[in-house]
Amino acid sequence: MKFIVQRQQLISSVQNVMKAISSKTAVPILTGMKIDATAQGITLTGSDSDISIESFIPSEEDGMVNVEQIEPGSIVVQARYFPDIVRKLPDNTVEIKADENFNMTIQSGKATFNLNGQDASEYPQLPVLQTDNNLEIQSDLLKNLIKQTVFAVSTMETRPILTGVNIKIENGKLLFTATDSHRLALRSIPLEDVTLNLPSIVVPGKSLNELNKILDDKGEKVEVSVTNNQIMFRTKHLNFLSRILDGNYPETSRLIPDQSQTELHAKTKELIDTIDRASLLAREERNNVVKLTTQHNQILQITSNSPEVGQVAEEITAESFEGEDVKISFSSKYMLDALKAIDSDEIVIKFTGAMRPFIIRPIDDDSILQLILPVRTY
Amino acid sequence: MKFIVQRQQLISSVQNVMKAISSKTAVPILTGMKIDATAQGITLTGSDSDISIESFIPSEEDGMVNVEQIEPGSIVVQARYFPDIVRKLPDNTVEIKADENFNMTIQSGKATFNLNGQDASEYPQLPVLQTDNNLEIQSDLLKNLIKQTVFAVSTMETRPILTGVNIKIENGKLLFTATDSHRLALRSIPLEDVTLNLPSIVVPGKSLNELNKILDDKGEKVEVSVTNNQIMFRTKHLNFLSRILDGNYPETSRLIPDQSQTELHAKTKELIDTIDRASLLAREERNNVVKLTTQHNQILQITSNSPEVGQVAEEITAESFEGEDVKISFSSKYMLDALKAIDSDEIVIKFTGAMRPFIIRPIDDDSILQLILPVRTY
Repeated sequence: MKFIVQRQQLISSVQNVMKAISSKTAVPILTGMKIDATAQGITLTGSDSDISIESFIPSEEDGMVNVEQIEPGSIVVQARYFPDIVRKLPDNTVEIKADENFNMTIQSGKATFNLNGQDASEYPQLPVLQTDNNLEIQSDLLKNLIKQTVFAVSTMETRPILTGVNIKIENGKLLFTATDSHRLALRSIPLEDVTLNLPSIVVPGKSLNELNKILDDKGEKVEVSVTNNQIMFRTKHLNFLSRILDGNYPETSRLIPDQSQTELHAKTKELIDTIDRASLLAREERNNVVKLTTQHNQILQITSNSPEVGQVAEEITAESFEGEDVKISFSSKYMLDALKAIDSDEIVIKFTGAMRPFIIRPIDDDSILQLILPVRTY
Repeated sequence: MKFIVQRQQLISSVQNVMKAISSKTAVPILTGMKIDATAQGITLTGSDSDISIESFIPSEEDGMVNVEQIEPGSIVVQARYFPDIVRKLPDNTVEIKADENFNMTIQSGKATFNLNGQDASEYPQLPVLQTDNNLEIQSDLLKNLIKQTVFAVSTMETRPILTGVNIKIENGKLLFTATDSHRLALRSIPLEDVTLNLPSIVVPGKSLNELNKILDDKGEKVEVSVTNNQIMFRTKHLNFLSRILDGNYPETSRLIPDQSQTELHAKTKELIDTIDRASLLAREERNNVVKLTTQHNQILQITSNSPEVGQVAEEITAESFEGEDVKISFSSKYMLDALKAIDSDEIVIKFTGAMRPFIIRPIDDDSILQLILPVRTY
């Protein structure tokens, strides 16, 4: 194997693939990164069994030459050193060679690295996804779907299915749902092709977080396909493969109240800042509870009390207020997560009583819903 | 106690004082920050016994009012919460009050914090330094003296005296010296007032690191005074007090070779980058050794070998070369620390043999000296 590659291309490809590589894996060869050279270009592969990422550098693209002097072949390089080496090489191009004894040479400017590689034929084969269930989505939209839901997945392994985000198609809409049973985040987008079908699946939150880091927000096209136990996100130069969680996702729609006793509108930023301040004294306590008390004159009082440290109280004025007064306590962390996920200057909150879940939505937009269960303090 | 203070002034004062406050201290009240209000202004104090910092906000300065409506008094506030509260308050001004029961109220905009404070009379008194040994130095120069030496102090408590920087006056020069017995860093500056005297003292590296963070580099005047067991650095609004280490600092001048067998000049940046690359494969090994081999045609070969991982080799061309060829191994970390501390585009290295210490200086500048002991590998 031999090729000369543009260093900047190699750096960004290596960075993407590294997101799938863990130094703690049961399969030793997976601590390495596979490099495949063909006449078409270079493919880098990383995998931790749960996530696999392939990044492709085409030898030519848009009239630019990225890879030259290719002699086809493969090698697995130790991923612990390779990214730093590539990043710190002195020249704009890098020559990479491997011989039949898996000795690898990396040359750039006057610097030469000789690394012990491994046999690429020992690297596990990634499954090839063949399916008709192909969905196309813009990368910026997909990133929003992820960011507005994934924070609400459970971090506890007691109910593994809740550590993932439920992805499904319903009534011509694509739905992302996440819940840790104390809060729920839901985001939908209308599909252009309403005939599309996709099974209801659950993708690990960790996979979606890594995918979100790799995708650019320039609106690149992402092709999504699903088989029994894998989901694939494919862009022009990237294959991102994740396992799907086993089991049925709980029916969450019945959790969402369809009526409310109180409805108020508030400025998102003002509410975030106020709750952030109220949470300062309660930081080390697990639930980090703040209390919201409304008064019929649109005044919302946010308070928190931490006996050893002190109290904090602040008032803000709602933009509008309808219904009964509310006295409710909730986790400030859940509330801040939810408010930050709502990409809107003004929000609606609907309460149905001090012990019932309440929902938060952007004003005039039904595509995002955040639900939070209150905390019993009275 | 009561006052209204400009929030930005309070934020920067609190940030400075926090550098002396540790949550792990044997004296519980030292986990707090003392606030003193007088007609002249507000003084904040923090201390961890080793370092004490006082920051003063004058009520008026340059025609600007910083503090208003002052009712004199003192309180100790829990330092764990105070900085975040001050930073996140909504308004440009902050009202702080304390009553006789040590209840403290912080008010800004519509936010009100009530905190449990402590009795300021229980806070230890800082020593008042009275001395004639006053030295004046520009803050940017003092920061350089610290940065170019302090990294070389020992981190091992086996010889406590080496965890500090030796500060002394010799032949009309102010000298900073640090060594961990494997390397040595020395920086001197000429004194304007040659009659000045100062005892030879050793200041903990940690204290100087914190001082470096607090001092601005705008060339503010710093007054340095020393008593038996304390050193004080005083600027217009800041008193920085550190304990001095007990014991005699070793005589280091005899370590510095006064002759050399080999002298070479090299570009600092090029040498840093090359050694940085050579050190990539040896990261986890404690000494992180690289080898420098010179050839009489001014070629310097930098190599490193890590049997399990691989090898790296790179050549650079010296700007000039005189004397015998050298084959020498050294810690890449020590070499990089030394080279980065030398603020010059080109450096001189003088060798006196493979097992003798070598020295690095900026070209045409005797005020900085970096010395490194080689590592035996042959």
